[in-house]
Amino acid sequence: MKARFAIVAALLGGLVALAVVSTQTGQRQVSIVITNGTVVTMDGSRRVIADGAVAIDGPGIVAVDAADVVERRFRGAETIDAAGQVVLPGLVNTHTHAPMVLYRGLADDLALMEWLTKYIFPAEAKTVSPDFVRAGTRLAALEMIQSGTTTYADMYYFEEEIARETKAAGLRGVLGQTIIQFPVADAKTPADALARAEALITAFKGDALITPAVAPHAIYTLDGPTLMAARTLARRHGVPTLIHLAETSDELNTAQERFKASPVNYLERLGFLGPGVLAAHAVWVSDAEIALLRKREVGVSHNPESNMKLASGTAPVTSYRAAEVAIGLGTDGAASNNDLDMFEAMRVASLLQKVRTGDPRALGAAAALELATIGGARALGMASQIGSLEPGKRADVIIVGMTAARQTPMYDPVSHLVYTTRGDDVRTTIVNGRVLMRDRRVLTLDEAAVLAEARAWAVKVRAAVN
Amino acid sequence: MKARFAIVAALLGGLVALAVVSTQTGQRQVSIVITNGTVVTMDGSRRVIADGAVAIDGPGIVAVDAADVVERRFRGAETIDAAGQVVLPGLVNTHTHAPMVLYRGLADDLALMEWLTKYIFPAEAKTVSPDFVRAGTRLAALEMIQSGTTTYADMYYFEEEIARETKAAGLRGVLGQTIIQFPVADAKTPADALARAEALITAFKGDALITPAVAPHAIYTLDGPTLMAARTLARRHGVPTLIHLAETSDELNTAQERFKASPVNYLERLGFLGPGVLAAHAVWVSDAEIALLRKREVGVSHNPESNMKLASGTAPVTSYRAAEVAIGLGTDGAASNNDLDMFEAMRVASLLQKVRTGDPRALGAAAALELATIGGARALGMASQIGSLEPGKRADVIIVGMTAARQTPMYDPVSHLVYTTRGDDVRTTIVNGRVLMRDRRVLTLDEAAVLAEARAWAVKVRAAVN
Repeated sequence: MKARFAIVAALLGGLVALAVVSTQTGQRQVSIVITNGTVVTMDGSRRVIADGAVAIDGPGIVAVDAADVVERRFRGAETIDAAGQVVLPGLVNTHTHAPMVLYRGLADDLALMEWLTKYIFPAEAKTVSPDFVRAGTRLAALEMIQSGTTTYADMYYFEEEIARETKAAGLRGVLGQTIIQFPVADAKTPADALARAEALITAFKGDALITPAVAPHAIYTLDGPTLMAARTLARRHGVPTLIHLAETSDELNTAQERFKASPVNYLERLGFLGPGVLAAHAVWVSDAEIALLRKREVGVSHNPESNMKLASGTAPVTSYRAAEVAIGLGTDGAASNNDLDMFEAMRVASLLQKVRTGDPRALGAAAALELATIGGARALGMASQIGSLEPGKRADVIIVGMTAARQTPMYDPVSHLVYTTRGDDVRTTIVNGRVLMRDRRVLTLDEAAVLAEARAWAVKVRAAVN
Repeated sequence: MKARFAIVAALLGGLVALAVVSTQTGQRQVSIVITNGTVVTMDGSRRVIADGAVAIDGPGIVAVDAADVVERRFRGAETIDAAGQVVLPGLVNTHTHAPMVLYRGLADDLALMEWLTKYIFPAEAKTVSPDFVRAGTRLAALEMIQSGTTTYADMYYFEEEIARETKAAGLRGVLGQTIIQFPVADAKTPADALARAEALITAFKGDALITPAVAPHAIYTLDGPTLMAARTLARRHGVPTLIHLAETSDELNTAQERFKASPVNYLERLGFLGPGVLAAHAVWVSDAEIALLRKREVGVSHNPESNMKLASGTAPVTSYRAAEVAIGLGTDGAASNNDLDMFEAMRVASLLQKVRTGDPRALGAAAALELATIGGARALGMASQIGSLEPGKRADVIIVGMTAARQTPMYDPVSHLVYTTRGDDVRTTIVNGRVLMRDRRVLTLDEAAVLAEARAWAVKVRAAVN
């Protein structure tokens, strides 16, 4: 006991001594310095620093530069050696339904209506509850932290529970309470859901990590007045509006029949479109509609794996980019993906645009990486805070291993991030200056407990669909 | 020293005692028993055994059954506990160019001709040599063993070097010496290449792991007589013929112009098509041509990631399957993928067919897994030896971890193998009864040395294209 005390005292003495030295050398003490890595900044000039460093103090980034420059100016209470690794902004998943990880692989390869009516809806009717949503969010958060997602946008039920778990796990979230016309687990009526959304906004407004949002489900599951009530609520509080839009040809046909307008034009007619709206999928759109979305400053979330798995179609991502629409990338829920790996989403997004356009130059690695970082930040209206490594932005940073056989040799880190890297290569995840995972060990969640709890829920889910 | 000796003696004594017990209980001693796993057999009835076991003796499988049944009958000199893991046949990669891993990510997102003429051809002209090919094959073998590929089909230069390295690494290979009209690193003329191919055949005929093959490059890089000379050589020796076929619309147009026939019909007219031919890509084919390929018993290798990345097009895989063509899956070389992960190839194959057909039921998980196992074995004419776990087949077996957060919960192992598993989840790889990787440690290659050698080659490759 005495010996330990002596060691602690010696260490403390050392730190004090170092602090003095620091002051003498003019170094500023900060919380974390990440050094010796290849820093892919995603800043305005897309600077890649071969031997770079990032200094973090509290929740923010204070410097991004060559390693020797940063080390001369800053001393970290914690120093992270990123040798052989790539340091980049945390990935931004612009569309998911986090708790649906508990339905991962429950049913695949089915026609959409069979999948929904035989599996997803019955499972949701019998299992969605605050407990379920909490367990699912913890599992999703674990997977996101492990795979380098630092911000995610969500649409589900009991969203206040999702917000609490997201905050506890240390992730950043734009979390939208679902509004839907028919009775669901957390709301008997759309009015109930709107009240729940307002309570969520009140509870989390101004939170450092959680941006509350309103999530009207889609034009085919809500009537016009409810769509606009949701939108008005969001506008009144200045929070984002998340909606599924123009996902399938069925939705397009339904809109043409019911409203004599495309989904996008229908929302325009209602007065729904505007800054703060994030449209998920937006597959079935004309060039004129893309121009309209740009004019209304609507953000778009592209979900290539889900669109392929559900055979929804292929979004015209290159057209969105040419029109300068703020577009990001999403995984969608794990029931239609079946994971939350944003590296794979980048890769599939790139491959899909190439084959769609017949042009191998379409959506190259740099563009795919943009979608998953600064593009997603823009789509969510958060580009001043996240999406790139720049002084003054929040310290949402990931460090990615780049030395596996399948990543060897490395000619270009950006190519490798998109074409050969997986979520599992992420070694360290930092959000708002807090280390959530260090060298693959997640610090904010008890991994074994989270997995055990998910497996216990799976037994109930399976029973619900049998 | 004495103590160690005593322990060894005691252990040996114990083994002798166990052997006696085994004899007394009627158990047969075999080399390996893998037990307690979920065994996905891919046999004729696609049996999945929840708590299953596989007994291996020497190079072959002797039993596949419930764990208690196998354990009652067999005792393994080595027992592998596969609890929480899935045991399945080793994956079959039907098309790659192994040494091109050294060009991985050298250049991406370029139009095909720019990519070839500015990067790949100059790099090949200045770097391809026996040394280069050996280093590249070692890196590719490392990656394949780590990601569960146990058999691969290859087309490259100095193929005898590739054969030696493949055999040393313990992998199974169908290895084709490239025949091409213009001078290349290993042959000044097609006649040189044909002589080299014949030497390869002579050297490796009857080998337990290596099936030598002849690889005429494509219809647009070879004249008719040389194509047929290659085919005749393969026929005379009863070895496979590997060829790129109908990969791009350019190839289709060229064939129509030069030969007044599609690529498939041109080869038919030459008398090229027949059993033993493996056509890589086969994207641009009509239904009539698919029927012809079936009639001629030609195998097809589908390479979804390469076809997407190079914007070649989308092969009609569901039509091939409906026509009962022997079709397998390939990664293509790592210069156009950019890795050799067959799990990702399965996933992308499934997603791509769904979006191509607009039907989420197209190429489900079970079908994708077929492509990567028994389908590939059929395409290579090796279905009596590999592609499923059945007594009498070669012991090419992989054991895959299934407990990561992104794989939790698990409702269906086949869904998870296709939609959420990566090569890195493979824990153990066995080929021909030999353990090549045990719990992620590759036993037949010095990983650090292979990676260092690859990085040294990358310096020369980079210099070659600058």
